[in-house]
Amino acid sequence: MTRTLTILNGPNLNLLGEREPDIYGRFTLADIESACAEAARAHGFSIAFKQTNHEGELVEHIQQSRESAGLILNAGAYTHTSVAMHDALKSLSIPIIEVHLSNIFAREPFRHHSYVSPLARGVICGLGPKGYTLAIEALTNLI
Amino acid sequence: MTRTLTILNGPNLNLLGEREPDIYGRFTLADIESACAEAARAHGFSIAFKQTNHEGELVEHIQQSRESAGLILNAGAYTHTSVAMHDALKSLSIPIIEVHLSNIFAREPFRHHSYVSPLARGVICGLGPKGYTLAIEALTNLI
Amino acid sequence: MTRTLTILNGPNLNLLGEREPDIYGRFTLADIESACAEAARAHGFSIAFKQTNHEGELVEHIQQSRESAGLILNAGAYTHTSVAMHDALKSLSIPIIEVHLSNIFAREPFRHHSYVSPLARGVICGLGPKGYTLAIEALTNLI
Amino acid sequence: MTRTLTILNGPNLNLLGEREPDIYGRFTLADIESACAEAARAHGFSIAFKQTNHEGELVEHIQQSRESAGLILNAGAYTHTSVAMHDALKSLSIPIIEVHLSNIFAREPFRHHSYVSPLARGVICGLGPKGYTLAIEALTNLI
Amino acid sequence: MTRTLTILNGPNLNLLGEREPDIYGRFTLADIESACAEAARAHGFSIAFKQTNHEGELVEHIQQSRESAGLILNAGAYTHTSVAMHDALKSLSIPIIEVHLSNIFAREPFRHHSYVSPLARGVICGLGPKGYTLAIEALTNLI
Amino acid sequence: MTRTLTILNGPNLNLLGEREPDIYGRFTLADIESACAEAARAHGFSIAFKQTNHEGELVEHIQQSRESAGLILNAGAYTHTSVAMHDALKSLSIPIIEVHLSNIFAREPFRHHSYVSPLARGVICGLGPKGYTLAIEALTNLI
Amino acid sequence: MTRTLTILNGPNLNLLGEREPDIYGRFTLADIESACAEAARAHGFSIAFKQTNHEGELVEHIQQSRESAGLILNAGAYTHTSVAMHDALKSLSIPIIEVHLSNIFAREPFRHHSYVSPLARGVICGLGPKGYTLAIEALTNLI
Amino acid sequence: MTRTLTILNGPNLNLLGEREPDIYGRFTLADIESACAEAARAHGFSIAFKQTNHEGELVEHIQQSRESAGLILNAGAYTHTSVAMHDALKSLSIPIIEVHLSNIFAREPFRHHSYVSPLARGVICGLGPKGYTLAIEALTNLI
Amino acid sequence: MTRTLTILNGPNLNLLGEREPDIYGRFTLADIESACAEAARAHGFSIAFKQTNHEGELVEHIQQSRESAGLILNAGAYTHTSVAMHDALKSLSIPIIEVHLSNIFAREPFRHHSYVSPLARGVICGLGPKGYTLAIEALTNLI
Amino acid sequence: MTRTLTILNGPNLNLLGEREPDIYGRFTLADIESACAEAARAHGFSIAFKQTNHEGELVEHIQQSRESAGLILNAGAYTHTSVAMHDALKSLSIPIIEVHLSNIFAREPFRHHSYVSPLARGVICGLGPKGYTLAIEALTNLI
Amino acid sequence: MTRTLTILNGPNLNLLGEREPDIYGRFTLADIESACAEAARAHGFSIAFKQTNHEGELVEHIQQSRESAGLILNAGAYTHTSVAMHDALKSLSIPIIEVHLSNIFAREPFRHHSYVSPLARGVICGLGPKGYTLAIEALTNLI
Amino acid sequence: MTRTLTILNGPNLNLLGEREPDIYGRFTLADIESACAEAARAHGFSIAFKQTNHEGELVEHIQQSRESAGLILNAGAYTHTSVAMHDALKSLSIPIIEVHLSNIFAREPFRHHSYVSPLARGVICGLGPKGYTLAIEALTNLI
Repeated sequence: MTRTLTILNGPNLNLLGEREPDIYGRFTLADIESACAEAARAHGFSIAFKQTNHEGELVEHIQQSRESAGLILNAGAYTHTSVAMHDALKSLSIPIIEVHLSNIFAREPFRHHSYVSPLARGVICGLGPKGYTLAIEALTNLI
Repeated sequence: MTRTLTILNGPNLNLLGEREPDIYGRFTLADIESACAEAARAHGFSIAFKQTNHEGELVEHIQQSRESAGLILNAGAYTHTSVAMHDALKSLSIPIIEVHLSNIFAREPFRHHSYVSPLARGVICGLGPKGYTLAIEALTNLI
Repeated sequence: MTRTLTILNGPNLNLLGEREPDIYGRFTLADIESACAEAARAHGFSIAFKQTNHEGELVEHIQQSRESAGLILNAGAYTHTSVAMHDALKSLSIPIIEVHLSNIFAREPFRHHSYVSPLARGVICGLGPKGYTLAIEALTNLI
Repeated sequence: MTRTLTILNGPNLNLLGEREPDIYGRFTLADIESACAEAARAHGFSIAFKQTNHEGELVEHIQQSRESAGLILNAGAYTHTSVAMHDALKSLSIPIIEVHLSNIFAREPFRHHSYVSPLARGVICGLGPKGYTLAIEALTNLI
Repeated sequence: MTRTLTILNGPNLNLLGEREPDIYGRFTLADIESACAEAARAHGFSIAFKQTNHEGELVEHIQQSRESAGLILNAGAYTHTSVAMHDALKSLSIPIIEVHLSNIFAREPFRHHSYVSPLARGVICGLGPKGYTLAIEALTNLI
Repeated sequence: MTRTLTILNGPNLNLLGEREPDIYGRFTLADIESACAEAARAHGFSIAFKQTNHEGELVEHIQQSRESAGLILNAGAYTHTSVAMHDALKSLSIPIIEVHLSNIFAREPFRHHSYVSPLARGVICGLGPKGYTLAIEALTNLI
Repeated sequence: MTRTLTILNGPNLNLLGEREPDIYGRFTLADIESACAEAARAHGFSIAFKQTNHEGELVEHIQQSRESAGLILNAGAYTHTSVAMHDALKSLSIPIIEVHLSNIFAREPFRHHSYVSPLARGVICGLGPKGYTLAIEALTNLI
Repeated sequence: MTRTLTILNGPNLNLLGEREPDIYGRFTLADIESACAEAARAHGFSIAFKQTNHEGELVEHIQQSRESAGLILNAGAYTHTSVAMHDALKSLSIPIIEVHLSNIFAREPFRHHSYVSPLARGVICGLGPKGYTLAIEALTNLI
Repeated sequence: MTRTLTILNGPNLNLLGEREPDIYGRFTLADIESACAEAARAHGFSIAFKQTNHEGELVEHIQQSRESAGLILNAGAYTHTSVAMHDALKSLSIPIIEVHLSNIFAREPFRHHSYVSPLARGVICGLGPKGYTLAIEALTNLI
Repeated sequence: MTRTLTILNGPNLNLLGEREPDIYGRFTLADIESACAEAARAHGFSIAFKQTNHEGELVEHIQQSRESAGLILNAGAYTHTSVAMHDALKSLSIPIIEVHLSNIFAREPFRHHSYVSPLARGVICGLGPKGYTLAIEALTNLI
Repeated sequence: MTRTLTILNGPNLNLLGEREPDIYGRFTLADIESACAEAARAHGFSIAFKQTNHEGELVEHIQQSRESAGLILNAGAYTHTSVAMHDALKSLSIPIIEVHLSNIFAREPFRHHSYVSPLARGVICGLGPKGYTLAIEALTNLI
Repeated sequence: MTRTLTILNGPNLNLLGEREPDIYGRFTLADIESACAEAARAHGFSIAFKQTNHEGELVEHIQQSRESAGLILNAGAYTHTSVAMHDALKSLSIPIIEVHLSNIFAREPFRHHSYVSPLARGVICGLGPKGYTLAIEALTNLI
């Protein structure tokens, strides 16, 4: 059986550490990737960690994750607008955990609806980079 | 005069035969392409058959279809979200027929609105791959 | 097994060829009936073709169609308002295809909701009288 | 040219003089018919005066009015619910005046929308039976 | 004083025992009529028991019930759409009890609004045929 | 008893004959005033005929009309926006008839709500200047 | 098997006979309890009859009713606001009948939605104290 | 400095292990308490673990948590309805993490809004009892 | 005649002087009680001053206030959510004045609707503790 | 420092004592002015008391009040419609108290929204003319 | 042909330089008038520059602008509320440009709708006084 | 300091001069680029002028513009749908001006909301290609 966790990051997450540090903090996406790799390794998993600003690419990364053991998805702004991503997620049978760095429910109303949530096992938000490693812990617990 | 029908397919349609067979059946997109080519040939047309998961590419395929005799469009999830696609369709003067494999009106409410419909001559949905060949029949009837 | 297709037409369709030719064209309901009879015969079916302006009669025609092999329904304005018709359709177990001559999604908003669609296998609209014969082709394909 | 005015009355108007006299007064529909006949005669017109409780019949009465010089329509409750009636009215090219005995805008919200109004030349409401004869005066003025 | 209870049944109730037995059960409308006649007789009343699929006929049955001692109304789908029926009910001064076989509040949202309820003394729903005899018990208690 | 009818006209009605002749026709407000004076005289009334573009002035004209025998009000755009006018109308005990030259129900949605209607005996719209003289006829009939 | 019916009453029902007698009548909650006890005894059941003004207590009474043969619930105002009560009801597998003394559908809009209805077998409202004994009759019929 | 984490549980959580095991699983609240105590101890904290079905008590437990190092809150159904709880949370300056056993975003729409979320640092839902220990991990990380 | 004014305070008002001093100021509930007692005494009244965090208790305090000369109610968060409180208030015939320390109309939208207001003689908000003594002045003026 | 309180009254308040005495009582605006002058004098202030039916004049009176010590505003119907008044109020830095004679929250829904409230320190409504003197008391307390 | 540009300013713009300098800056309306006069002169135009706080006056200024070469309109708060202004603008055939000093789309929702925009050639907002001179440049370009 | 202005153009703007000339005119995007280059040069700036049909590319162009002196953005259809673009704009600290060739407020409702506007200094729309050079003038004025 596969021992890989796919971790996908959506638009603007490449800016982490630069964009709106009040909301997102000063760590970079590479910092998160390292922390995830380490946390996964502790449970005997490797990770496939990707970022894209393109909705179509996100769709394809999701399609390709089907052989993974599980998916952790921080879809950024596409969380709120992408039915195409929603459909790609519906095609998966692996467990999915939705992660957001900030607490999206304490922000603008257009961030309160998610096209990921109805298809996810669980949601973790507002806990910063820690949310990713908690998600790994939860996901490895489910598999 | 051109004798080509453009047939465009949106996101996740590359998964046909794999994704949610209860809703979409077990045929593949290649099966549909073959059926379309044959149906078009019977009316003296060739086809240009494309699929993309990218909204921008869909826009560009639509722009490039302007020299075709007609357009059959199954925009998948972009049906419900893409104003950019809508604008590209507005630039065409060829007849457009909208196709969906499933009956989108019997599914989630967010699938009930289409940015294609107001610009299409007709809509065919819920009839599976058969919908494509019926659309060809209707379209060649209009030209 | 029955080899009859029921084809029901709702209010004002008796005016075809007279009412709003810009929207509905110049053919009459009798023209459509002939075309349907011929198309059905080609697939080995006969048709029962009816029109009514009365919601109650439409309900009863639907109830009586239960022994048919399938139902093609252009419910006209009752499409948008009749829960009674919806309930009658729910009592059927034969396949139903919804047809509209015009593209109802390109018209007034009150024509965008249908009490037929959630119970139909498929929907064909905007393709004029051709929509009826395409529906026969699709329906005989399903049976 | 025809010199007949069609005057159609919808559901429950047969009860006039009995139903809710506080709202509708004590005159009967026959009283209104007499007053209309006299008012029309004064302008050189005869009248066709009908009442029905059936939506389908109302649709057919409207279809049959097409040879009249004009239509006065008090569609009662179907005013607010009947798209079938709306479609029948769209098939007419004669002038239409909408009449209501009571001031529907001072009553329940579900009486504030009319499927007649967008197709009528004018609307007269709240003036009781007098509204019918004023409508005749207005209509003969338009013809 | 009249000793008759009118019991009116709306569209599709003629199908009872056939339509959607999961929701409506296997008893027929004739079974309900018998049970009602017996229950009414026990309280010294006779019944007038009718069914119609036609909105206009329902309106007229309601109008004609004015000489009854009370009205039990299961208006079926017209419950949710018929202002004409609502107006006919407003013309009555006898007590009205609304009955539904199924629990309409546990079904689709479009069944949650009733044009009968605001004019009824009471509502009984979800209790199957038993609801009719309970309504008779309640109604004879009110008269 | 007073024998004066107050006839008030709201904003932009001073432009009649110039503004949007397709909607409002080519007659002027002075033409309407003459027709009204004549119609009122025929019933034994004089008229007080005023126009204003100012909401506050309209409020005051309404306050001052309380000694009239009745009020005919074409409040123009203030119909749709002025609660102050609504309150002034509530202070009157004379009968009020609302008039509009055009059929406001066939125009933009923001013209479909009126702060006059709930306080008026009746409404006449879409009948052009004729609406004013019909209103006089109706009003003198009520007094 | 248990032969007890639980009958729960929500906030302000302790005031019966005092509060708004125009709506609720002059009988007291003790009167209702007596009538229920008698009606239940006639079917071979005893009753557990309780009232509380506290949402949390209502939740706990519902939790404790799980060993009863059935539940009759008049949740008063909590009907419209308590998701906690809804969740407690979801944990039950015994049949539930919802009762209201007044016809809540003829009252303010905020009383038209119920968090009990979707989980109840049936609903009886508007029939005063009689509603409770009818509910017992219906419930014992279901068990 | 205090080394206690307050963990509050809202209505019906006392039923865990019994209520709707398909949604909530078979573990009990005591099981969760043990897991939390152990997880907290590993970070050098003790816990105050409480459950209540009463909104007022929940408010008071929140008020009393102000001396804790942090709050983990699974408010159950009060999450969606209690402004009183929201106000109590506003009075705290300690970090709050919201937990739900099930994925509330994949359930009924009335569970999609939370009066806790805008005041929480983070939200964890859908991960079962594991969600509590992840919250402890996140919370001790924040303090 | 009774000379007591009941003054009820809802959830979280026990925190006054501690909670959100920017909004609510630094005075305590005891300070307000003293000021109220003095103001009432000046008009010859005594006061019954209570606070509760429990909706059910608030309902019961309201029920018990019926023998008072008047009620001043600051229901805190229950203002916006409690239909049970609304029903308890409906059972009173004494005058009620609603008070809020902060200007609820300048805060979140969910604080803009009140279940107290439609049943109160008057509303005073945004004036801090002074609002209570003004309410006493107004109430004694009404009695 | 200025010792003047500006007290502004909006449309139709000149009718006090005549208009709808059931709602507004029999006192006149002059009576209120006298009571205010006296109450203000008791606190060492003079008043500038004005009334206008014109939105523009109200805007200008507000602009001119900027040198006052405070503003009491009963904007009548402009409360609900005037963004221009709202903008004028935003330009002030003196404290504002909103007053209404009637309890606007117990009246029509269109009176429930106020363009004054978000900019006022406090709101007093439903207490008749007493509301003005209470506002003076509150305002002098704030200055 | 006329060489005058009309520049109209709505309510509270007379306060420029005083009101909310954070939003509107420190320049006065006279400064804007000077800049406009100069910019217009550079293109060979004179200007008619007016300000009013009165809706009726704004309507009349618009009516009188019909002989100008073009209209620049900053209607202030009337932008969002005045149908009367909208109707006056409809009577013009000269080009109209809408200007706002602040970016109304970044402010409160009630400022996001404009009764000017649908009738304007273009909209310039958020650019402060510069917006006026850009509008002159654009307008002279259009004439 | 950088002296470059970034000018970004969204989907379908590559079609300028071909698509819907009634709305967009006959000039091409190259024409606009030339005019912009010249206008910028006059103020001592160079330009970076780009067009893309891809949302992800637009996001990246925005990210890359952070070193520019300012951004002019005509996001075409992504204006109305792209939260990803909105987030990219939030990461910028340079001034942004939103431009549209057509007056989007006079078009379909789905074009009335912009995800650019709340983050822009100003908006210019409806002024055709002239809007770009006006934006340059405004932007250089701001820098």
